[in-house]
Amino acid sequence: MDDNTEYRIEHDTMGEVRVPVSALYRAQTQRAVENFPISGKGLEAAQIVSLARIKRAAAQANAELGVLDQSIADAIVAAADEVIEGGVDLAAQFPVDVYQTGSGTSSNMNMNEVLATLATGKLGSPVHPNDHVNASQSSNDVFPTSVHIAVTAALIDELIPSLDHLAVSLERKAEDWAGIVKSGRTHLMDATPVTLGQEFGGYARQIRLGIERVRTALPRVAEVPLGGTAVGTGINTPAGFPQRVIGILVRDTELPITEAADHFEAQANRDGLVDASGALRTIAVSLTKINNDLRWMGSGPNTGLAEIHIPDLQPGSSIMPGKVNPVVPEATLMVAARVIGNDATIAWAGASGSFELNVQIPVMGTALLESIRLLSNAVRVLADKTVDGLEPNTERATALAGMSPSIVTPLNKLIGYEAAAKIAKHSVKQGITVREAVIDLGYVERGELTEAQLDSALDLLSMTRPPQA
Amino acid sequence: MDDNTEYRIEHDTMGEVRVPVSALYRAQTQRAVENFPISGKGLEAAQIVSLARIKRAAAQANAELGVLDQSIADAIVAAADEVIEGGVDLAAQFPVDVYQTGSGTSSNMNMNEVLATLATGKLGSPVHPNDHVNASQSSNDVFPTSVHIAVTAALIDELIPSLDHLAVSLERKAEDWAGIVKSGRTHLMDATPVTLGQEFGGYARQIRLGIERVRTALPRVAEVPLGGTAVGTGINTPAGFPQRVIGILVRDTELPITEAADHFEAQANRDGLVDASGALRTIAVSLTKINNDLRWMGSGPNTGLAEIHIPDLQPGSSIMPGKVNPVVPEATLMVAARVIGNDATIAWAGASGSFELNVQIPVMGTALLESIRLLSNAVRVLADKTVDGLEPNTERATALAGMSPSIVTPLNKLIGYEAAAKIAKHSVKQGITVREAVIDLGYVERGELTEAQLDSALDLLSMTRPPQA
Amino acid sequence: MDDNTEYRIEHDTMGEVRVPVSALYRAQTQRAVENFPISGKGLEAAQIVSLARIKRAAAQANAELGVLDQSIADAIVAAADEVIEGGVDLAAQFPVDVYQTGSGTSSNMNMNEVLATLATGKLGSPVHPNDHVNASQSSNDVFPTSVHIAVTAALIDELIPSLDHLAVSLERKAEDWAGIVKSGRTHLMDATPVTLGQEFGGYARQIRLGIERVRTALPRVAEVPLGGTAVGTGINTPAGFPQRVIGILVRDTELPITEAADHFEAQANRDGLVDASGALRTIAVSLTKINNDLRWMGSGPNTGLAEIHIPDLQPGSSIMPGKVNPVVPEATLMVAARVIGNDATIAWAGASGSFELNVQIPVMGTALLESIRLLSNAVRVLADKTVDGLEPNTERATALAGMSPSIVTPLNKLIGYEAAAKIAKHSVKQGITVREAVIDLGYVERGELTEAQLDSALDLLSMTRPPQA
Amino acid sequence: MDDNTEYRIEHDTMGEVRVPVSALYRAQTQRAVENFPISGKGLEAAQIVSLARIKRAAAQANAELGVLDQSIADAIVAAADEVIEGGVDLAAQFPVDVYQTGSGTSSNMNMNEVLATLATGKLGSPVHPNDHVNASQSSNDVFPTSVHIAVTAALIDELIPSLDHLAVSLERKAEDWAGIVKSGRTHLMDATPVTLGQEFGGYARQIRLGIERVRTALPRVAEVPLGGTAVGTGINTPAGFPQRVIGILVRDTELPITEAADHFEAQANRDGLVDASGALRTIAVSLTKINNDLRWMGSGPNTGLAEIHIPDLQPGSSIMPGKVNPVVPEATLMVAARVIGNDATIAWAGASGSFELNVQIPVMGTALLESIRLLSNAVRVLADKTVDGLEPNTERATALAGMSPSIVTPLNKLIGYEAAAKIAKHSVKQGITVREAVIDLGYVERGELTEAQLDSALDLLSMTRPPQA
Repeated sequence: MDDNTEYRIEHDTMGEVRVPVSALYRAQTQRAVENFPISGKGLEAAQIVSLARIKRAAAQANAELGVLDQSIADAIVAAADEVIEGGVDLAAQFPVDVYQTGSGTSSNMNMNEVLATLATGKLGSPVHPNDHVNASQSSNDVFPTSVHIAVTAALIDELIPSLDHLAVSLERKAEDWAGIVKSGRTHLMDATPVTLGQEFGGYARQIRLGIERVRTALPRVAEVPLGGTAVGTGINTPAGFPQRVIGILVRDTELPITEAADHFEAQANRDGLVDASGALRTIAVSLTKINNDLRWMGSGPNTGLAEIHIPDLQPGSSIMPGKVNPVVPEATLMVAARVIGNDATIAWAGASGSFELNVQIPVMGTALLESIRLLSNAVRVLADKTVDGLEPNTERATALAGMSPSIVTPLNKLIGYEAAAKIAKHSVKQGITVREAVIDLGYVERGELTEAQLDSALDLLSMTRPPQA
Repeated sequence: MDDNTEYRIEHDTMGEVRVPVSALYRAQTQRAVENFPISGKGLEAAQIVSLARIKRAAAQANAELGVLDQSIADAIVAAADEVIEGGVDLAAQFPVDVYQTGSGTSSNMNMNEVLATLATGKLGSPVHPNDHVNASQSSNDVFPTSVHIAVTAALIDELIPSLDHLAVSLERKAEDWAGIVKSGRTHLMDATPVTLGQEFGGYARQIRLGIERVRTALPRVAEVPLGGTAVGTGINTPAGFPQRVIGILVRDTELPITEAADHFEAQANRDGLVDASGALRTIAVSLTKINNDLRWMGSGPNTGLAEIHIPDLQPGSSIMPGKVNPVVPEATLMVAARVIGNDATIAWAGASGSFELNVQIPVMGTALLESIRLLSNAVRVLADKTVDGLEPNTERATALAGMSPSIVTPLNKLIGYEAAAKIAKHSVKQGITVREAVIDLGYVERGELTEAQLDSALDLLSMTRPPQA
Repeated sequence: MDDNTEYRIEHDTMGEVRVPVSALYRAQTQRAVENFPISGKGLEAAQIVSLARIKRAAAQANAELGVLDQSIADAIVAAADEVIEGGVDLAAQFPVDVYQTGSGTSSNMNMNEVLATLATGKLGSPVHPNDHVNASQSSNDVFPTSVHIAVTAALIDELIPSLDHLAVSLERKAEDWAGIVKSGRTHLMDATPVTLGQEFGGYARQIRLGIERVRTALPRVAEVPLGGTAVGTGINTPAGFPQRVIGILVRDTELPITEAADHFEAQANRDGLVDASGALRTIAVSLTKINNDLRWMGSGPNTGLAEIHIPDLQPGSSIMPGKVNPVVPEATLMVAARVIGNDATIAWAGASGSFELNVQIPVMGTALLESIRLLSNAVRVLADKTVDGLEPNTERATALAGMSPSIVTPLNKLIGYEAAAKIAKHSVKQGITVREAVIDLGYVERGELTEAQLDSALDLLSMTRPPQA
Repeated sequence: MDDNTEYRIEHDTMGEVRVPVSALYRAQTQRAVENFPISGKGLEAAQIVSLARIKRAAAQANAELGVLDQSIADAIVAAADEVIEGGVDLAAQFPVDVYQTGSGTSSNMNMNEVLATLATGKLGSPVHPNDHVNASQSSNDVFPTSVHIAVTAALIDELIPSLDHLAVSLERKAEDWAGIVKSGRTHLMDATPVTLGQEFGGYARQIRLGIERVRTALPRVAEVPLGGTAVGTGINTPAGFPQRVIGILVRDTELPITEAADHFEAQANRDGLVDASGALRTIAVSLTKINNDLRWMGSGPNTGLAEIHIPDLQPGSSIMPGKVNPVVPEATLMVAARVIGNDATIAWAGASGSFELNVQIPVMGTALLESIRLLSNAVRVLADKTVDGLEPNTERATALAGMSPSIVTPLNKLIGYEAAAKIAKHSVKQGITVREAVIDLGYVERGELTEAQLDSALDLLSMTRPPQA
């Protein structure tokens, strides 16, 4: 609020308040602006739009059920459309901080007031924020519903397609690189060979499982408390209200939104959000593994593993000339760290409810929507700017595979684990190949192995192929 | 190892080791005992038994596929049965610490050695820990498989039935108390009334949703890496091996175990455990809310809410005579705190893998099995010793409900939100009932409301009933 | 980048890049803008300013040590002053996303480029981003240093004063309410009395301990890696460089910044940030306890504890007229939840380093600075809008204190714990006072207690006073 | 309780209870055993001993202050000595589960009962658990005090010496390896050289900072609530009681225990434990970094970095013969994961208090003592079995250092960042050394650099040395 702002006087049940002349909102929003100068950040835009959608559907249902005059309802619908379709500056007209009352009442009233002002303008006669826009509703059912709908939409419309995009990119590599042998590594130590394609197939499967995790969480996120009003009993709603509102929302959004099976559970708890965040957390864990592998495989160029080349996107160092770093994997790893933190916030907040209400809904909704947004953007960038452009250092990868003493493993079946161990140790100690060590230790000479058996056993590519029936 | 222990000499590929004469295990176990004097605690018993089951099934499959002589396989099966059926002192014979090599190789070798010793005794000729007991296997597929099977069993056989037991107990209260009116509370402040039954119905639904959470996580926990051996390629397994082993395990355990869809994903990652822990975490969040509600409803006896009476289980204070505390809800809340911590451990460990192996499997398995065990026991105790014995203070609950100024809410529809607010504030300020405040402020006198309308609007029980079509 | 943007061509070691004409930044910043379309959010302003301060001091030191011409150094100093003093639109000119390369190189280059452009304008001849602005520096020492300085400043200049402000507010209540008796509550059950003042004194002490926690973390946060350049060895710095730069920074900022005792530790790890975040986490835990107590003490007005009145700041419900909620404590609790989550992010990121560098510095710095900002603002609002305006319901608080059956405790010493327990239970069961129960059970009649002893033992206020020598 | 147990009848204020004949404990312990069949695990032994020490000191102080007869006090002291000195089977006589009443009252009463039984035997006349052993005390001050004392002791006597032991071991390597050059790595990419000694010096410093973190947390852990009794007011304690008890405890244990500055803060909150756990958490973060570095430096033997050799402690694979893994670093990393989880439990529990008591003390104490124990043991094993035995692969490390294209960095000052970048890229692309690339690109021929300048600039060891004044 700078010094030149001009004000008008608004009032609510507590008295008068000075509100900027340009504001569509009114007294209660202004009180909230003054009460919560904490983060300087409002709700995620997706949730504000979702809230407008609910108000729109509620006005329609209220008209159908005789709670509102059709003309008032129409004005509210038109007002809501303005918000939904981008005709209102969300940052300016929805200035209430995330860190506000835990029910989101201030943001619900902010929406009620903005729509009342817009609708009043359209109708030419007063539309009341509470008695009309909020009719048959309470912050306690509407605000969490707006979170659940925004989250459901973001999961379905943003995260799943982005994850699929990354999975496709990884699957392409899995296919292209099906024949490139490299050393397996367990405990970071040389193990028996795998193919680069197998590794990328594994990454793709992790991402596909991530999609499955999101999908299994969806039914419980898409279940909304709308209709419970103040405490879950549905006080002050006409019969059929939530069913109609949800029906309209489903039609408008094509999202699989359902009415809560138990309004007391749905009103008092935000467990569905904790659950969904848990799915994102597992995806963050998957991405951490994948990106660390990418970074190590790309390490070098000369002193690292250098099995793949990560695309050069930007100069990597302000001091070391020519250095290029795996910057997108790093950015993705930081997104994972943020998702882990948001998840901790959400679980902590989710456990804080008492009786008929959880009062940490705004921070839960904001953190969850942020996690979805960050993950969606990061995995898309990862696919487009890094995975798609990866190139294998085939020669080096294969050479390393052949140097692993663990390729002695197929000899277990021919000469036993203990003899094979001796060979592996001899090869490492003498700096010779496993094949040389076998011969050096006399296994062929003594007739315990033929050269043909040895060559067959030590064929790298065949070691990467699961046995066939 | 006290001073009187007698020892024998065992050897492995690294040389000789002194092992207690009474030990069924051999050199590698003994090395691990000496290498990891960290927690003094071994794996959860459920995992050890699960590992024995896998060895048993593997021996059978190896015989069927010609990898092992039938007689050796039979001896291994008999040895495994001894472990499974309790004939072996698990604490004494499986002494390897949880904090060991991250692949669990030491515990896998412990099992290989114990079974080799037992099988050798049964067969009368040497059975080798690696070449026979571990045939066609690697720690890297077998050990995580043992975790997944133990977790799957514990979720299905212990946690879900225990949660169901608690849900039934809560549902019984929901039904019994369907008619007991009490004050709703949102933001901890007096709200419109609900029934005790509605609240307990909400708790029951939370628990039922918890069961659903576990169920949706199960398919990804029950998917096991067995058959991948060293790095996922299945090196040194005969064709058909994992399918046969899993077939036998499914038959033996009746668990929905499946072979990994992608052995590289399944070998390198333990995301399914992170996922499952996330489900437990949400249940811990639900239990936190429920138990805090129980504690507050039972607070008093004279200075708290005192709406219910929590059964007296033990004297509550060493200094304040006659005090009785909600001890089982408190114990359950501490279990929730532990589950939250175990979950953090599991996510942290789950993100630590590199290439073909995660090397924090023992701590993940132990933490997850502990969480399941604690939750299973705690919710059963909660049902039996607390929920079942709860008694409502009906008279007080109803009296409080009538004192809430929020019962003015139904008047919104008759006289508007702002007039209703005035009444509520007048009632609180004057210390009179809402009904008295309505009359005091002249609404009846002025004919804005009839006494009949007033009585109907202020009927508490009807406020708790969702509107009917 | 909208369609009407006009561009110029810039180049770096990788080639040419189109940069908006209005940008002070150049090629590398532009690459980063395009590489990281992830969160849409840049670094915290405090860190950007801190980075400019370092560049300013480095230019001065470089001139003193003969690395830069004085005129170039002067131009860089003047350019940095423009950024520090608000002459540059930070959001527009520092557009690099938080989720960028993990070393913060992109942001360091962003600063190098902006200052090079500004300095070039001032000097009238080219100032190079790397060779001049970044002279004797690397992102790897400069970027984390900018985080540590910004955090040190925020802790000292914002958080500690805000915590002190809250502590003073709580201490005022502790003093004012020293004589107001209320029921103690342990396990939420009625306990022996305390005074409201004692409770608020305890809260104040928690906050004072929070300040102590921050202070003890400061020395390790204020220790900066500057001077280590690329990997900690200080390659390409002249002797005396870090000492001079830090000397200038200390003089400019009056912060207790010190050079790292070991540059390899300081370069590779951000443990000092993890540490500092741990202190904030403990403060969040303290605030959670305090605000929950406030909410419960203020619960009601008619069905809760109602021992204090929390100031009315805004209407509390969109449906329940006249309801007022403890909105600032709720906002503070959500801040605590966010700080807990940021802390999880910071620990996760802090553990992710390898060899000479941690590559999750931007997310650590941003999360930590956000936590400090949120806490600083929230506790100030809490003091001003809630604690200062609290009013005791003295009569009710004292009445409840007298109703607690635990006031029987002083009788332990006169008649023993077991007899006292009988009295307490009799009082609750019969709904009579403890005094009445003593008499009813014949203790006075039988001469086990005199009435004077009884009155003295049951004096509430004396029960709240620690025994005096 | 198996079928053959014989029982005696005990009673408490709630009635009669069957207690095993062999039990030293009585009715309240038995009730707790039956009420909490949850984890099967009791408190950490260190806390039980600490509780006995408090009872011992309290008996002495009670005698001095005239609250107890000297003969009763002497009997209690003798009884406590039996527990402290190991004369009592802690597992058998202290069977109360960790997951019990959140105040630890059951464990306090367990101790009161055991000591009463033992003291009664010694005295030959009844010693009462509450009236004598617990005289002047409450669970609410004594139980948390026992946690704080046990934690203080464990930090000072176990953790700090163990950390010092590891730091010394690392410092020895830092000194021994001061001249071994290796490639630095930032973003995992080849950077300018460092010495192995510098890296190990950095690790040592991290551990030394860990000790400092513990030391700065100590004053707030060592501050105990003893003397507050039921609610912090010290009801039922004689004047001077806490001072005397703490004086005796300080004399007996030589620990820096102090009386709480504010008994209301100290009674109601366990923030000091959250704080201390935060210090351990930072140490876990440090250990994660160090052990990951060790694992990567030791990776190979043939396909990894292979810059050091980690001692062979045990065969590494049940399938890959001859494989040896970094098992102790892995065990330590799992300990870190557990400490992270315990820390989450402790913060969660720490935030759960209400009014005069936190009711999650047993889980906090157990988790914190476990973290200290695990860390103390793990870092000692890490020093003794891994760090001490590390061997450098000097030749390979130095060769890799020379292959890093980032050694071009010193040329910045001679020919500028952009020219140096060209050289680095040319060297990597052509697979030639940096020196060769300089010559190949004509810098010497053109006279921009002399060969002497080139040799001096490219001297690896000098790149690792901080500039000297």
